[in-house]
Amino acid sequence: MIINLERNDRTPIYMQIRNQIMIKISNGNLPSGSRLPSERSLALELGVNRSTIVRAYEELAADGLVEAHVGRGTRVCTSLPSEPINEHSDEPPFAWQHLLNRSSHRMQDGTLAGILGMLSSDNLISFASGVPDPETYPLEECRLLCEQVLNTEWKSALDYSETNGMPVFRQALCSFLKDEGCSYSPENILVCSGSQQCLDILARTLIEPGDSVIVEEPTYIGALNAFRLSRARFLPIPVDREGMRTDILEQILKRQQAKFIYTMPTAQNPAACTLNPERRLHLIKLARQYHLPIVEDDAYGCLHYGPEPVPSLASLDRSGQVVYLGSASKMIFPGLRIGWIAGPEQLIKACALIKQVTDLHTSSFSQLLMAKLFQKKRLRDHLDGIRPLYKKKRDIMLNALTRCAVPGLKWHVPDGGLYIWAELPSPVKAADLLARTRRKGVVFMPGAPFFPNGGGEQFVRLAFSRHSHTEITRGIGIICAEIELMLAELVEHNIDYSSISNLHLV
Amino acid sequence: MIINLERNDRTPIYMQIRNQIMIKISNGNLPSGSRLPSERSLALELGVNRSTIVRAYEELAADGLVEAHVGRGTRVCTSLPSEPINEHSDEPPFAWQHLLNRSSHRMQDGTLAGILGMLSSDNLISFASGVPDPETYPLEECRLLCEQVLNTEWKSALDYSETNGMPVFRQALCSFLKDEGCSYSPENILVCSGSQQCLDILARTLIEPGDSVIVEEPTYIGALNAFRLSRARFLPIPVDREGMRTDILEQILKRQQAKFIYTMPTAQNPAACTLNPERRLHLIKLARQYHLPIVEDDAYGCLHYGPEPVPSLASLDRSGQVVYLGSASKMIFPGLRIGWIAGPEQLIKACALIKQVTDLHTSSFSQLLMAKLFQKKRLRDHLDGIRPLYKKKRDIMLNALTRCAVPGLKWHVPDGGLYIWAELPSPVKAADLLARTRRKGVVFMPGAPFFPNGGGEQFVRLAFSRHSHTEITRGIGIICAEIELMLAELVEHNIDYSSISNLHLV
Repeated sequence: MIINLERNDRTPIYMQIRNQIMIKISNGNLPSGSRLPSERSLALELGVNRSTIVRAYEELAADGLVEAHVGRGTRVCTSLPSEPINEHSDEPPFAWQHLLNRSSHRMQDGTLAGILGMLSSDNLISFASGVPDPETYPLEECRLLCEQVLNTEWKSALDYSETNGMPVFRQALCSFLKDEGCSYSPENILVCSGSQQCLDILARTLIEPGDSVIVEEPTYIGALNAFRLSRARFLPIPVDREGMRTDILEQILKRQQAKFIYTMPTAQNPAACTLNPERRLHLIKLARQYHLPIVEDDAYGCLHYGPEPVPSLASLDRSGQVVYLGSASKMIFPGLRIGWIAGPEQLIKACALIKQVTDLHTSSFSQLLMAKLFQKKRLRDHLDGIRPLYKKKRDIMLNALTRCAVPGLKWHVPDGGLYIWAELPSPVKAADLLARTRRKGVVFMPGAPFFPNGGGEQFVRLAFSRHSHTEITRGIGIICAEIELMLAELVEHNIDYSSISNLHLV
Repeated sequence: MIINLERNDRTPIYMQIRNQIMIKISNGNLPSGSRLPSERSLALELGVNRSTIVRAYEELAADGLVEAHVGRGTRVCTSLPSEPINEHSDEPPFAWQHLLNRSSHRMQDGTLAGILGMLSSDNLISFASGVPDPETYPLEECRLLCEQVLNTEWKSALDYSETNGMPVFRQALCSFLKDEGCSYSPENILVCSGSQQCLDILARTLIEPGDSVIVEEPTYIGALNAFRLSRARFLPIPVDREGMRTDILEQILKRQQAKFIYTMPTAQNPAACTLNPERRLHLIKLARQYHLPIVEDDAYGCLHYGPEPVPSLASLDRSGQVVYLGSASKMIFPGLRIGWIAGPEQLIKACALIKQVTDLHTSSFSQLLMAKLFQKKRLRDHLDGIRPLYKKKRDIMLNALTRCAVPGLKWHVPDGGLYIWAELPSPVKAADLLARTRRKGVVFMPGAPFFPNGGGEQFVRLAFSRHSHTEITRGIGIICAEIELMLAELVEHNIDYSSISNLHLV
């Protein structure tokens, strides 16, 4: 057995022997059941006293690693890592649940994880997630760009890069945003790993536990969760077809203190509404009047189906009060995890310090690939190409809903984004409906989690982006048929109940 | 001018006109200074009353978008987004600083950002960061793997994926870890964006504000910052050449409550020490006795220069008490941002809920690329290849230090990792030394930020990974020469001072 002894080491010889045998056991070099050399032979081999080996073996036995059997010598009694943790082990499992902090305990419902989980089953028609249609990915172009990156910028692509984002990416993004009417320099940009991280980092930079945040009702679950994790409270402002009710916001601001206003003014998720120009100006006016930052989440701004895009709040902002969040996820490739915060340098610096603690920086490879897409109008061409495709899918879903003509089912025509937001006929609840349609292979997102302080059980969010026209029509047919069935059953139930209670009265 | 009026819309006609002109202004379709049609001609064109146009123009003037000049008609007075935020604008800049939360205020020193910033200057010899040598990147192989990913798995590579990590990656990682003596199933793994994110997510899952965390002194700055951001306090345990002083840990545990023990037992950053086998068993025994989780950060475990690797704590753990953090950043490609938390399923589930709020999931592309590297022993071959290269660089730096023979400068031979940890001769301070060597083109990391509760001003961390042999020798020569100069000056100063005070006594 090869054991290297260091005579000058402070560690006693018998401990050196024990340590090196321990390593061999845990490495698997000495598997379970294998026999150690006899004490005498090892002592000879190493040129030490037999008593030194005896002591080393005694230590190993005390560690539970070897067993001495009379007449059979000393054997390894277990190779340490042979079994998965907690299974078949002689120790009771460690009680992790009690160590989680309060935020973790509060997070245990995991709605979003459920949605992402639902995606992985190939047999479902899923209207649950607003994921881009992979058929739209410009794959050939992407492969060429990857090759370019690896040919000319491979060092940067695989290496650490700046926390704020790679200069070449930020510069390309600024040019892109300039065409959108927003003037930013690279110092105004923090590159994040998707717009979800933008929300989390902003929350961690701004929110003090107990702070109130103004949000739309309903609004994006991921934003609510990020703000909740920073222990915010919510001041919800209802939306209608024209976006946030700024008249109600004005009333709230007169009597309530808030940290910032979070809004998704264009193609809102989930309510599929776009803030009209008048309310945009009103919102900015109120923010100035009450000295409140606006966090504008423009994840879906690139997917508008009207003749002209409505200007972003950031493009209307003249006092540096709007923080603008964008994302590559709905534009092109969600798997690259690229998003950005654009705003005043002072804020960006503070956010970058948090980002650095969070994950140092966003994938260099992803940034270089996206930078190439931003350059030379490639991305703009792609967007011009996908808008009509998604608009068509929207229309297919709208037609299917209209044809089914479920009494009391309400929706409106979204002018952007990937969703139809529908209200179920009373008293059908989205969660009950989902349980039934799921059995028939169709899922969607129930509305309740989008409501910051409860409610919304009668709403559903239907994403039309992922599936083919036939699947959309089939899926909507299944959902509508279930609603009709539930309405019929509920009517029967009501009759039953009333007859029972009549009997009781007798 | 093209304006589409919706007679059935709830928005009054004059507001529709105003809104659409506003959009044209902010789009740049109506640039600054351009003239609007006369009220009469636009009224005719749109088939509305002239008074409707008058009202619309009045609204636009009230918004500050147009100005009416007698005899010159109505002109756009500014295209809204023409200037960068806060510059040349008529509004005072918005006071963001006052909106930052307490954690943000505390983060404002940004030591790590500074290090990453130092990297970007090509003319420096930087011993500041433990970044892999890009010359070691297996580029040709990587290009082939990228092509494979894009040929066969492009949909998954560019699409959303599971929060916990892609199954194919987790499976490949588990096989890799099995060879390291750790038995995990994919359910025991959470894929993160680098090991920095592992630390942040664990902190957010476990730490309640005010909780105490046991850390080594010195220890990794990124861990300290992640724990600080979750408002932890620190119980520092000193390290020596054999790693954490578990005897002192035992004393502390007798009188102090802690949430968990954070340790980097192998090739510790920054102290370049490896916990000896005996202390490993002692540490695990103490953790069991006090029912304390151990967070084992094994970022540098792959870079050991001894004959056999010391077994990880995770491989010695039989009660599921060790959470194991790993990273691709020191193994191969830091730019991909791949790290992992391996631990009991219960904890992994709780961490995944936090991860989901943080950034939904880690880059799918990066995961697929890394999965391919884990498969077929490619990564192991790469590691076997880079260890001798780094060991050689270590020896070059050690030789340079020995040759310079600065009196009182102390270091030891690290048996792994990318750093030499050195103690400066008293009274030289690392920060003063850095200020001087920087002017001569050499930087390193001063020791103080690695100390959780202050101290460490006499230490420096010297990373030997990035530069060529010649540069290492030259850089160490410059540093050592500066130390000798400083010592000489300090001696002179001391003489001066004493002679001055003697004069005063006279």
